[in-house]
Amino acid sequence: MVSVAEASSIVFAHLFGPSVETVGLPDAINKVLAEKVMADRDFPPFDRVSMDGMAIRFEAWEAGRREFFIEDTQAAGVRQKHLKDVQNCLEVMTGAVLPKGTDTVIPYEAIGIKNGSAAVLTNDLTKGQNIHGQGNDAKNGDVLLEPGLLLSPAEIALLAAVGKSQVQVFSFPRTAVVSSGDELVEVEAKPEPHQIRRSNTFAIQAAMKTLGWEGTAFHLMDNKEQMVETMKKIAETFKVIMLSGGVSKGKFDFVPSVLEEIGVTKLFHTVNQRPGKPFWFGVSKKGVTVFALPGNPVSTYMCFYRYIKPWLLKSVGVKNDSLVARLAKDFSFTGGLTYFLQVAVKDEDGKLMAYPIPGGGSGDFANLKNVTGFLELPEDRSAFVAGELFPYIPFRNIV
Amino acid sequence: MVSVAEASSIVFAHLFGPSVETVGLPDAINKVLAEKVMADRDFPPFDRVSMDGMAIRFEAWEAGRREFFIEDTQAAGVRQKHLKDVQNCLEVMTGAVLPKGTDTVIPYEAIGIKNGSAAVLTNDLTKGQNIHGQGNDAKNGDVLLEPGLLLSPAEIALLAAVGKSQVQVFSFPRTAVVSSGDELVEVEAKPEPHQIRRSNTFAIQAAMKTLGWEGTAFHLMDNKEQMVETMKKIAETFKVIMLSGGVSKGKFDFVPSVLEEIGVTKLFHTVNQRPGKPFWFGVSKKGVTVFALPGNPVSTYMCFYRYIKPWLLKSVGVKNDSLVARLAKDFSFTGGLTYFLQVAVKDEDGKLMAYPIPGGGSGDFANLKNVTGFLELPEDRSAFVAGELFPYIPFRNIV
Repeated sequence: MVSVAEASSIVFAHLFGPSVETVGLPDAINKVLAEKVMADRDFPPFDRVSMDGMAIRFEAWEAGRREFFIEDTQAAGVRQKHLKDVQNCLEVMTGAVLPKGTDTVIPYEAIGIKNGSAAVLTNDLTKGQNIHGQGNDAKNGDVLLEPGLLLSPAEIALLAAVGKSQVQVFSFPRTAVVSSGDELVEVEAKPEPHQIRRSNTFAIQAAMKTLGWEGTAFHLMDNKEQMVETMKKIAETFKVIMLSGGVSKGKFDFVPSVLEEIGVTKLFHTVNQRPGKPFWFGVSKKGVTVFALPGNPVSTYMCFYRYIKPWLLKSVGVKNDSLVARLAKDFSFTGGLTYFLQVAVKDEDGKLMAYPIPGGGSGDFANLKNVTGFLELPEDRSAFVAGELFPYIPFRNIV
Repeated sequence: MVSVAEASSIVFAHLFGPSVETVGLPDAINKVLAEKVMADRDFPPFDRVSMDGMAIRFEAWEAGRREFFIEDTQAAGVRQKHLKDVQNCLEVMTGAVLPKGTDTVIPYEAIGIKNGSAAVLTNDLTKGQNIHGQGNDAKNGDVLLEPGLLLSPAEIALLAAVGKSQVQVFSFPRTAVVSSGDELVEVEAKPEPHQIRRSNTFAIQAAMKTLGWEGTAFHLMDNKEQMVETMKKIAETFKVIMLSGGVSKGKFDFVPSVLEEIGVTKLFHTVNQRPGKPFWFGVSKKGVTVFALPGNPVSTYMCFYRYIKPWLLKSVGVKNDSLVARLAKDFSFTGGLTYFLQVAVKDEDGKLMAYPIPGGGSGDFANLKNVTGFLELPEDRSAFVAGELFPYIPFRNIV
């Protein structure tokens, strides 16, 4: 048996070597950037008018001029015009190139227009106002984005702006999600009294999907020979295998021996934690990573978010800030192991308060709908006081 | 001009009437549930063994018995067996039905097995231990999930467990995302010096995608007649239109007049906020909702997250807790309007601390990559002190 800290460091010592794929811009959302992205021009690419109004030469105003004949209009999307007479002005639109010979934009609000001339109605003018200067945000060649960034809509806009209609992103490993157990039937089935429907693979596949990761589902009956045969085939095709069930001490818990038989080396089996104690982890000579998770829904779920999700994100270089939350009510349990307490975290006056929702144990996934994540309570204690801070593993955003 | 509070209440007074669609279970992730989901049996459906070991009748142990002949094995997925002799035991597996006649499970750890008998090695036994009782989590007919729930992987598992291979979810309205402006060229194009590439529609479409909402992109040149013609067609096909650009005071800002010409009634134009002041909102007689956003990338982005995302979620009944965060550094500006400050929020000792990253104004979207959201600073003040709490509008999860 290993501790949670040992289990983590073993898992994180076996990251996968990600490959890179090219996707179209709209498909890059929520993917992890695999290339450096540079500005292909200055941003803004020209001195950009940022208010609708009149562009003047500041020195004329400074010299006392208050009325400016409007020479022309500079619209957005039109080549740069130039001010012919420094005593005049050009009408300019937001997004337009600042006309040559002008250096200051007076907004409509501060102007009266009559007979083709603009009278300035303010005495408060600053040279260069209402101009978003060329290269102010970024210079041509500047690195705008680094690999390992989880792409949000803001970055999608940035990629569009620098002309990246195709983007290099990391591709996640081909993954099998394997349930096991004779008691499990399909979702569509009407279960016999002693049977239940498969649900873990759906939860894992859905959790993967939220990370832009695909999983292919399989099911194994509790028959060792058949399991060896099927698992051999799966291990030939997939780089990652997540199993649920069959890893405990029961007579028909064949998963550990099946995995060793097909050449997967055990790196640990059983972690000093609740839920999820029977968690098994190993790697094959051919580089297949195997997470064999306990079959109880809450255990499966906790192990995915505590070990597998950070393993995936670390593998592609995503810097993942860890969160802490404050226990909102006293909590105690027998101690001696790391306890992953089901909590509902709320933002109360800017503080992340974690309300315990202990539920009916690792099989009680009906309880999870009220839960936002797990609070990780350390193994060396048994009583925990309201107000204390502990690591928080969210599985649901508190939007 | 309206205040931010007025603009919000006008927008939220015009929610859309969602329709319902049926999706397969794997596609339900991140969608909003549109039906009540009931337990179709008890959960667990039977008294469920929750540890591998031996099932006994507690009264035998209580009467002094410490060694139990193993009558048989009760595996998971097998019909309920029954204990023939109350002095004996049945070997049981996690997930199995508790055999008839037994009421307590002793785990392998507390047992020594020899010659087909199990000797109990502990004096610490509780009647009913290691049994997850029938109906403990939910009773047949209990309402497990209510409409308006944003489905996370945990709920997908629950839906699978109750046999919902098809789920009713709310469908989001058919939506057009329309950019405008002669200065904009396609992402693939090499822009002339006075041109820039389209980026707002990509950002909006990506932001929509993260909500499971699809947008179809269009572009309008600054030509009023063409705009009227195209917008008429768009308004016939789509229930929601989001425009960006063309709503300010410029000579070629035709959007407001075009919208009124095609029969969209203005509900407000200009909001006392920065960025995003020229924001225009209206509804047509045929029920098309139109958000005409300012064209500056940061304005577009802010308006989407401050107004449109909550509008969408409210329309389908999602209870959306609002967040507050703590200003991490003093900040001041000229005041007189609601200021949406770009911030990076970090979890520091369980507190959401918002670090100002003001950037180069509403055109500076290169800055957004360091930003996690906006802090909403009220219009009646101009100086804001570190430690104060303000509403926080996230656009990026702090995972």
